[in-house]
Amino acid sequence: MGDRWSRLAELAVYGANIQSGQIVLVTAELGQEPLARAVAAAAYDLGAKFVDVDYFDPWIKRARIEHADPDTLGFVPEWFGRRLLAHAEARGGRVTLVGVVAPNAMRGLDMSLAGKDMLPRVKELGMIVGERWTNWCIAPCPHPEWGKLVYPALPEDEAYEKLWRDLEHVLRLDEPDPVKAWEERMGVLKDSASRLAACRFDAFELRGPGTELTVGMLPTHDWWAADFTTVDGLRHLPNLPTEEVFTTPDPLRTEGHVSATRPLVLRDGTIIPGLRVRFEGGGAVEIDADENFEALRVQLAIDEGALRLGELALVDREGRIGPLGTVFFNTLLDENAASHIAFGNGFPFLVEDGDLGRVNKSGTHVDFMIGSPELEVVGLTAAGERVPVLRNGEWQI
Amino acid sequence: MGDRWSRLAELAVYGANIQSGQIVLVTAELGQEPLARAVAAAAYDLGAKFVDVDYFDPWIKRARIEHADPDTLGFVPEWFGRRLLAHAEARGGRVTLVGVVAPNAMRGLDMSLAGKDMLPRVKELGMIVGERWTNWCIAPCPHPEWGKLVYPALPEDEAYEKLWRDLEHVLRLDEPDPVKAWEERMGVLKDSASRLAACRFDAFELRGPGTELTVGMLPTHDWWAADFTTVDGLRHLPNLPTEEVFTTPDPLRTEGHVSATRPLVLRDGTIIPGLRVRFEGGGAVEIDADENFEALRVQLAIDEGALRLGELALVDREGRIGPLGTVFFNTLLDENAASHIAFGNGFPFLVEDGDLGRVNKSGTHVDFMIGSPELEVVGLTAAGERVPVLRNGEWQI
Repeated sequence: MGDRWSRLAELAVYGANIQSGQIVLVTAELGQEPLARAVAAAAYDLGAKFVDVDYFDPWIKRARIEHADPDTLGFVPEWFGRRLLAHAEARGGRVTLVGVVAPNAMRGLDMSLAGKDMLPRVKELGMIVGERWTNWCIAPCPHPEWGKLVYPALPEDEAYEKLWRDLEHVLRLDEPDPVKAWEERMGVLKDSASRLAACRFDAFELRGPGTELTVGMLPTHDWWAADFTTVDGLRHLPNLPTEEVFTTPDPLRTEGHVSATRPLVLRDGTIIPGLRVRFEGGGAVEIDADENFEALRVQLAIDEGALRLGELALVDREGRIGPLGTVFFNTLLDENAASHIAFGNGFPFLVEDGDLGRVNKSGTHVDFMIGSPELEVVGLTAAGERVPVLRNGEWQI
Repeated sequence: MGDRWSRLAELAVYGANIQSGQIVLVTAELGQEPLARAVAAAAYDLGAKFVDVDYFDPWIKRARIEHADPDTLGFVPEWFGRRLLAHAEARGGRVTLVGVVAPNAMRGLDMSLAGKDMLPRVKELGMIVGERWTNWCIAPCPHPEWGKLVYPALPEDEAYEKLWRDLEHVLRLDEPDPVKAWEERMGVLKDSASRLAACRFDAFELRGPGTELTVGMLPTHDWWAADFTTVDGLRHLPNLPTEEVFTTPDPLRTEGHVSATRPLVLRDGTIIPGLRVRFEGGGAVEIDADENFEALRVQLAIDEGALRLGELALVDREGRIGPLGTVFFNTLLDENAASHIAFGNGFPFLVEDGDLGRVNKSGTHVDFMIGSPELEVVGLTAAGERVPVLRNGEWQI
């Protein structure tokens, strides 16, 4: 097993492009210790000056929601944000581990309370990402509980092994040279992004089962693959795996309704199936779900920007995640299986200076999947022309 | 088990005297989650505004020592100290869990490297304690690995259960009203401290197997039990259990040699048996041990004050720990079984203003036990009179 964790860790620090002399923040959840330790070792091997591992314990969060004064649940000590800002000012790198570990940690809680505590999300991170101060990578960490959730019909050890193999496949760790495989795939994704950006559409229409949405664009919007460069010119792959191309939309011009095609899983493990949202004038005016929708509603009540869109992302059928047909109950995986939109903070680096003030701002960023093979995406030009963009998961441009 | 953890947690927050509206820092090691969570719940029940639990992972430290550039091992990001200072400025409370969890985490490492990384100790804590900014309590957390270390001849579950019962006994959790039992015991300890302080001895002589030591006192030195009051007047019991009375000595006037009567266990779990130290002019000039002495030597190389004494503590035989005759491999327990001295940072609050500048200053504080039933303590007055203080574990004053 040691080798397996090490290979995953080495891919994560390749994605983050950790540099000699950097301070590395590793964000993990209790249960992800084997990978956190392997990431620390891999980062030190690359010359990291210090690896600061922060373990989040969802059961401490549960104790808070059950025992604390409800009026205090939104409070976060100022040193949470200052740590991230000081690290970003020192131009450190970051590795964040995600995946299901404790799916029951929030079970049975009053969701209107649970949603008030946004941790482990710290609001300063949105600005740090937006300003491109740090090189970073989010990578998945296998866990037996995650295996059980994804493959409930299998015995626990088989489910865990199958999850490992799934993750190794979508991370291209089953390739002889995973880094080379990623460089090739990033080339294809960046090419798709360039073609989309060149069209400079005024808006996109998305139509599929339960979804009829028009998302307006800012005039100078760009499309990127998840192949980033910091302000200091340090390239990094912020998500591994990644199969998406994405832009930041006009937060005032989303109209219509969407139905999520995969369950939304909040950072604290709360699963929200059957999410449905109606937009008017750019903002969500109705939000509903089959379960736990209160937790999301409260998270989206933190500021005005939380109810507007910060991201539109398209995923074709050539990636490795969609074809598995597996619901991973995890945004990193599921968002790269299907096209998606995100509430909350947008990406200022995806517009030119003139549109900078128009990009959505929020203390949160919540992706949810609306894509499926049936989703049809059409680009609308300023002149009113309709141009097919994505049909049956295939690019039309 | 839930009840057992809760009772221990309630005692810890009673010791720290957590106040409504306080931010509470909980310092724990991976493996101590059940108690950390129970402390969070207990603190929230008392009205804590936020409980910030920091889990230390000794295996991350091991990864650093094995993989990092040795020249970087002393580095600590500035936000570690700033977090503690900001919390202290906000007048928060602290609960620190101690006990053995991963006794092998540092096994086989180059000790001269391991000692350079002082974490989880953060140097700013010495000043925070010295200035009495926060109310706090250190309490022990049972763990199966700790049980195995203390009772190697017992099956693991029996050893764990015996450790639980030992800890419940010394924590007076086997009393019908543990808080009342502690208030009574603190009364006795404070009385002993007052009588010692009233003597205003110029020095103490300690003689026992392997120990012949003279420790000079500062003219205005006081003796305290571990019953503290913050600068703002908030009483708290900083150690539970506690059986000691202690003072801060003149760092320039320790002469002679000592042999530790219990193994010294560093915060990272390194066990140092058979410690022997020789002092001249207040400073340690020879340090040796049966094993792992390099780890201590390097820790004591961090500054000049680290090699001088910050504390002299006397423990009588009326406490609950000494009579068990058990070596707990943990300073909180073992230091309260036997008289002890500590290298490093002293306690400015134990002298009057005129002597403030003479109290020892250091980024470290390392207790080690020199007491035994055979230890005889004699007070020396300024006039040269010799006054018996402690003999066969009984007070002579």
